[in-house]
Amino acid sequence: MAERLKGNMLIAQSGGPTAVINQSLVGAIIEAKKHGEIKGIYGALNGIKGIMEERLIDLRREQLPNIKKEACTPCAALGSVRKKPSEQDCAAIFKILQKYDIRYFFYIGGNDSAETTHIINENTKKDNYEFRCFHIPKTIDNDLLENDHTPGYGSAARFVAMAVMGDNFDNISLPGVKIDVIMGRHAGFLAAASSLARVNEGDGPHLIYFPERPFSKEMFLTDLEKVYSRYGRCLVAVSEGICDENGDPIASKFIKEVDAHGNVQLSGTGALGDLLAGFVKNELKIGRVRADTFGYLQRSFPSLCSDVDVKEAYQVGALAVKYATSGKLGSGSVSIQRKKSKKYEVYFEPVELLKVAKHTKSMPAKFINKQGNNVTKAFIEYAKPLVSKLPEIGMLTKYPVRKR
Amino acid sequence: MAERLKGNMLIAQSGGPTAVINQSLVGAIIEAKKHGEIKGIYGALNGIKGIMEERLIDLRREQLPNIKKEACTPCAALGSVRKKPSEQDCAAIFKILQKYDIRYFFYIGGNDSAETTHIINENTKKDNYEFRCFHIPKTIDNDLLENDHTPGYGSAARFVAMAVMGDNFDNISLPGVKIDVIMGRHAGFLAAASSLARVNEGDGPHLIYFPERPFSKEMFLTDLEKVYSRYGRCLVAVSEGICDENGDPIASKFIKEVDAHGNVQLSGTGALGDLLAGFVKNELKIGRVRADTFGYLQRSFPSLCSDVDVKEAYQVGALAVKYATSGKLGSGSVSIQRKKSKKYEVYFEPVELLKVAKHTKSMPAKFINKQGNNVTKAFIEYAKPLVSKLPEIGMLTKYPVRKR
Repeated sequence: MAERLKGNMLIAQSGGPTAVINQSLVGAIIEAKKHGEIKGIYGALNGIKGIMEERLIDLRREQLPNIKKEACTPCAALGSVRKKPSEQDCAAIFKILQKYDIRYFFYIGGNDSAETTHIINENTKKDNYEFRCFHIPKTIDNDLLENDHTPGYGSAARFVAMAVMGDNFDNISLPGVKIDVIMGRHAGFLAAASSLARVNEGDGPHLIYFPERPFSKEMFLTDLEKVYSRYGRCLVAVSEGICDENGDPIASKFIKEVDAHGNVQLSGTGALGDLLAGFVKNELKIGRVRADTFGYLQRSFPSLCSDVDVKEAYQVGALAVKYATSGKLGSGSVSIQRKKSKKYEVYFEPVELLKVAKHTKSMPAKFINKQGNNVTKAFIEYAKPLVSKLPEIGMLTKYPVRKR
Repeated sequence: MAERLKGNMLIAQSGGPTAVINQSLVGAIIEAKKHGEIKGIYGALNGIKGIMEERLIDLRREQLPNIKKEACTPCAALGSVRKKPSEQDCAAIFKILQKYDIRYFFYIGGNDSAETTHIINENTKKDNYEFRCFHIPKTIDNDLLENDHTPGYGSAARFVAMAVMGDNFDNISLPGVKIDVIMGRHAGFLAAASSLARVNEGDGPHLIYFPERPFSKEMFLTDLEKVYSRYGRCLVAVSEGICDENGDPIASKFIKEVDAHGNVQLSGTGALGDLLAGFVKNELKIGRVRADTFGYLQRSFPSLCSDVDVKEAYQVGALAVKYATSGKLGSGSVSIQRKKSKKYEVYFEPVELLKVAKHTKSMPAKFINKQGNNVTKAFIEYAKPLVSKLPEIGMLTKYPVRKR
């Protein structure tokens, strides 16, 4: 049996927040309290930035009812950061880890955060410092490798499905072209979730575009004209990360800002939606063309979480602590796998940090139709259980009155 | 006692949809079934456009469970339109009314729709056609005259409050400047509702701008810098209808499209948010500046309705039919008034069509602070009961760990 490593625990959050990221935090805290070898349960504010600045809080002192309420509150309770540690940062972080006798470290985040966790872990090895660290997965983009899906995705996908469901009715009420720009830097999973909005024949989104398929203005306008002439309206869902044939993001043509990981700013601007709406207005001469960019609401909206997502986000937090304390692995990430059963069921598995770090997962080909402008049935089957039950929708039968 | 006018009833929806506009429709249908003098209960598809094109449906044949589900579904079940009838249109409409023996007409919409109802009513008088028509109020903008508030506002305000609540946590997680553009062409009621998002000291929105006060770039940047230097972040709520000192919408500087009522297109574009974010990036040199435009989600999001709003929307629909069948008034609109009691209570009153038509209500001065960049306590007291209970929010106490 592996040795019990005594010491303090440190947990932090990183990258874009989600609606359930605090479930993972609270899962880890509650689990940690069950392990006698874990003494102090500390949180670092704003990820590794808070570690370097020694802005640590004592999570053991938080009252249980309060942390349970915090679990249901969206966005990073500890604050977040987008920062890739330099050599120098790593040295600084290591000093803090030693000074506070941190033997367990947990970092909740996406692929960039897994990379950060790996870098920090490698750095401690040089000095033979006994240390166990786990990455706890979260990303609304659902693009983490080695996972069937990731915590945060289900709730964001639920928001997108509901928003597009309502927007479809709006578009029926006042027909025209409506373009909804949805988050997803490298993967179209979130844009694809808009398909779950469809209830009745003819419901939008009629077209969905993904970063996984090259986007061209010509194809877009041809697709759109076809739908418009059939339905007298067209609802389009577009991933913010759509790229041209060379793999350059369409948005990058007019947005220059990049973050610490070299990613172009795609969110927090309506520019892509307005660009696409401009194409339609100018070239198809359709009168009513509107674009909405769902923006940060997708990841931060309170009280709309998917039940499945809530449960799993809590579980990965608790499991990370279990894996670390078991001592069988020095480091890793917690992955979610789906059983091959008919009913939706998952199991969890530890995976190596490097396997989920840095790179991202794309939508598998079987989820995208041949034309590259819609999802397949396989995607609907995949995504439906993740968003939990969507609201019921009414629809008048519309018995015609005989013309007089 | 007034005479019972026998004939058919026609109902239609107009203008921007809301999340509860179908409650009013269903309220009117269910009430109409109680009145023997109303024979056919017809709906016109896409407002007066559907009347002119004789696209009428038989609402009496709809199954009750189905229309009850439809009541809870956002956006105009009958379809909507933005159209002001010309002289010629009025003549065409009158012919249809006569042909189908329409004696009761109900039009669900905002101030423009009240004007349309008035125009149609005036036109029938020439021929001494016995006719009773009522406008049923709805507008998320809350800018209808003679009303304490309007159906649709409470639910849209609830969405805005919840979205900004989540966005405030997002902005705490990853600090920076965040600008949220909120609907409201002439009135700042909806942008003001963002204030209901505040739970803890320091919560955003820190600044709110309204169409009722002149907006200048200089003032905006000065206000913002003050907040930013205090909190290291700033969350701003801006009404899409903000204007310069000359009363010209800031958005009109770069948007040229106008609708049939002469209104500039303000929604369905991220341009205003991006313009304001550009000011901050370029002049204050703040790194992380983001803008989201809430867009059509505000009026169409399913399953988030305010209970109070749902109830009142149903009531105004039912009351319009009661007023019309009572025969005491030939035409009018249903208004919502608030009792001067401590507990929130309303009563309803018929008002003349011309009193609510065309013109719009602004936020009263007592709801806006002196600087014109925030709401007052009086506004919070006014708006709080309209959005119903907001979700509970957790917050870590954040006990600091003693520095070593």
